[in-house]
Amino acid sequence: MARTLDPYGLSRVVRPAGVLPQAADVVDPSLPIGPDELLIDVDHLNIDAASFKQIKEGVGGDPERIAAEVRRIVGERGKMHNPVTGSGGMLIGRIREVGPQHPAAGTLKAGDRIATLVSLSLTPLHLEAITGVHVANERVDVKGTAILFATGLWAKLPSDMDDKLALAALDVCGAPALVARAVKAGQTVLVLGAGKSGALCCAQARDNGARVIALDISPKAVETLKNLGLADATIVADATTPVAVLEQVRALTDGKLCDVVINCSSVPRTEMASILSVKDRGTVVFFSMATSFTAAALGAEGVGKDADLLVGNGYAHGHAELTLDLLRKHPRLRALFEERFVG
Amino acid sequence: MARTLDPYGLSRVVRPAGVLPQAADVVDPSLPIGPDELLIDVDHLNIDAASFKQIKEGVGGDPERIAAEVRRIVGERGKMHNPVTGSGGMLIGRIREVGPQHPAAGTLKAGDRIATLVSLSLTPLHLEAITGVHVANERVDVKGTAILFATGLWAKLPSDMDDKLALAALDVCGAPALVARAVKAGQTVLVLGAGKSGALCCAQARDNGARVIALDISPKAVETLKNLGLADATIVADATTPVAVLEQVRALTDGKLCDVVINCSSVPRTEMASILSVKDRGTVVFFSMATSFTAAALGAEGVGKDADLLVGNGYAHGHAELTLDLLRKHPRLRALFEERFVG
Repeated sequence: MARTLDPYGLSRVVRPAGVLPQAADVVDPSLPIGPDELLIDVDHLNIDAASFKQIKEGVGGDPERIAAEVRRIVGERGKMHNPVTGSGGMLIGRIREVGPQHPAAGTLKAGDRIATLVSLSLTPLHLEAITGVHVANERVDVKGTAILFATGLWAKLPSDMDDKLALAALDVCGAPALVARAVKAGQTVLVLGAGKSGALCCAQARDNGARVIALDISPKAVETLKNLGLADATIVADATTPVAVLEQVRALTDGKLCDVVINCSSVPRTEMASILSVKDRGTVVFFSMATSFTAAALGAEGVGKDADLLVGNGYAHGHAELTLDLLRKHPRLRALFEERFVG
Repeated sequence: MARTLDPYGLSRVVRPAGVLPQAADVVDPSLPIGPDELLIDVDHLNIDAASFKQIKEGVGGDPERIAAEVRRIVGERGKMHNPVTGSGGMLIGRIREVGPQHPAAGTLKAGDRIATLVSLSLTPLHLEAITGVHVANERVDVKGTAILFATGLWAKLPSDMDDKLALAALDVCGAPALVARAVKAGQTVLVLGAGKSGALCCAQARDNGARVIALDISPKAVETLKNLGLADATIVADATTPVAVLEQVRALTDGKLCDVVINCSSVPRTEMASILSVKDRGTVVFFSMATSFTAAALGAEGVGKDADLLVGNGYAHGHAELTLDLLRKHPRLRALFEERFVG
């Protein structure tokens, strides 16, 4: 069958008809690739934590039975899309072929090592063999091929850093990329949450010339960011207590509040602390996956706050390179990542 | 007790300590008002549909017992905040006093008729009497006083239209106000959902000089908008089927997709249709309360779509006047509202 341009992989959907690959029960990973697809020789699958846990517990933890379950799922569905958890993961591999009309034609070449930044739950995958199961790392070594569509995100793995470090940063690379766009020099920026994405956002906001306030419930976490030169001021507070947060933000900003608030917290019910902390006509960017859409929309209305409320899109052009460059520009941030976030 | 500036009404919270009035179990509606508060003589409570249904079913539908239950709740909590449903409603009343440091001092005067645009679930309320219960309209006639904080939104009820028409439009007035900001002349705008907010958004987008495509699952609903001159083109599709929507959007835009997508749908799982329909670096505004935050954030990443994804904030400066003016400027839109959306 002659393949045609298919940026979303719609022709790879086997069933049900008319859905996107992520929503499909079964996709077709067969060769050849289409003119705008990318073919990858897969080396490792980094299986999503929830998915790996379910498989491990389902088969009793034995590596050979985990391997058999992964083979069964991929064999049945044409993708490593856990039918119980609905989640995927990502893969590491080497480019075998770049379709002539793929956006990376001319940039990527055979042999380049890449990580996929779209979920395995939508990535057509064919496995020839599973050669190793690393239970502690939720990683499976494989021989096989995967296909990325023209819209499927990927990043070249850098030669100047360890895979694990690069993957830890790439995992949240959408956040600093949006900060790079949203923050202007001279602004005051509050970053809620001093974890991986919070640290990257602080660094990027400072690079943009902003005054950065880092907030976390852990005194150690925010002190670390301040000591590394990534934050100008710190607030130790529970982000689920908006009134307490507001008081501290007022004190630190002379009552003027913040131009931009970046929510990188990991717990629910932090919407109001974010909304109260931002100025009239300021911007709040929600990266926390625990964000409630209605709490944000109705919460802003309830306190009469006219601010732009942005859903933290996981993708912005150039997000992977920007984030790896942040680690390169900030050796102490890189050291923090190596110490705290690389498993 | 001398009251001080208190824009969020924190000093009105009785318990628990340190929360916002909406999250409080009990608030204090006592007089006098503070220097930045507004005192209202309340005429009617429009009780939230979910709340009214729960009360009605709880007491067996008898108007006198409904009245007693409303009195009980307001007496115990200091606000008409249904403890079972968590929801409130809004009120209509007349200004009795404007605090000298309230933002509307100089604009509002005693006797002005207003509707509150913040929920009764955060509005301190004291009831002297309930004079009528209108079961079919979920409305209760009362004598009493309510207090609005400096951040509490309100709208003057216009003298040139019926209360019911004004309230139907004010209910969704955040949507056209954001459209007025987001849409530029010459752009192509897709509006998902041809209900109340969809109709207002179409009208505002056209007033901004955009080409407007109205989408709904009901052929009659979109045809009505086109016949009224509020949409340039129409799509009849189920917004939960992104591939089908994408095909029709491509056909209508010469493959270029839309600059701005406004999601006013009323059903879940319409995020991907919105995201696939927007151009690279375009804007999607989600007004649907059925929007899933994670479906939007992860969905855009999954298809590599770099677009600004906005939570439809229920408040934007001037939203009430803008929306009432839209009805005045578009007599056929006003007629549609009177025919279809006024109960």
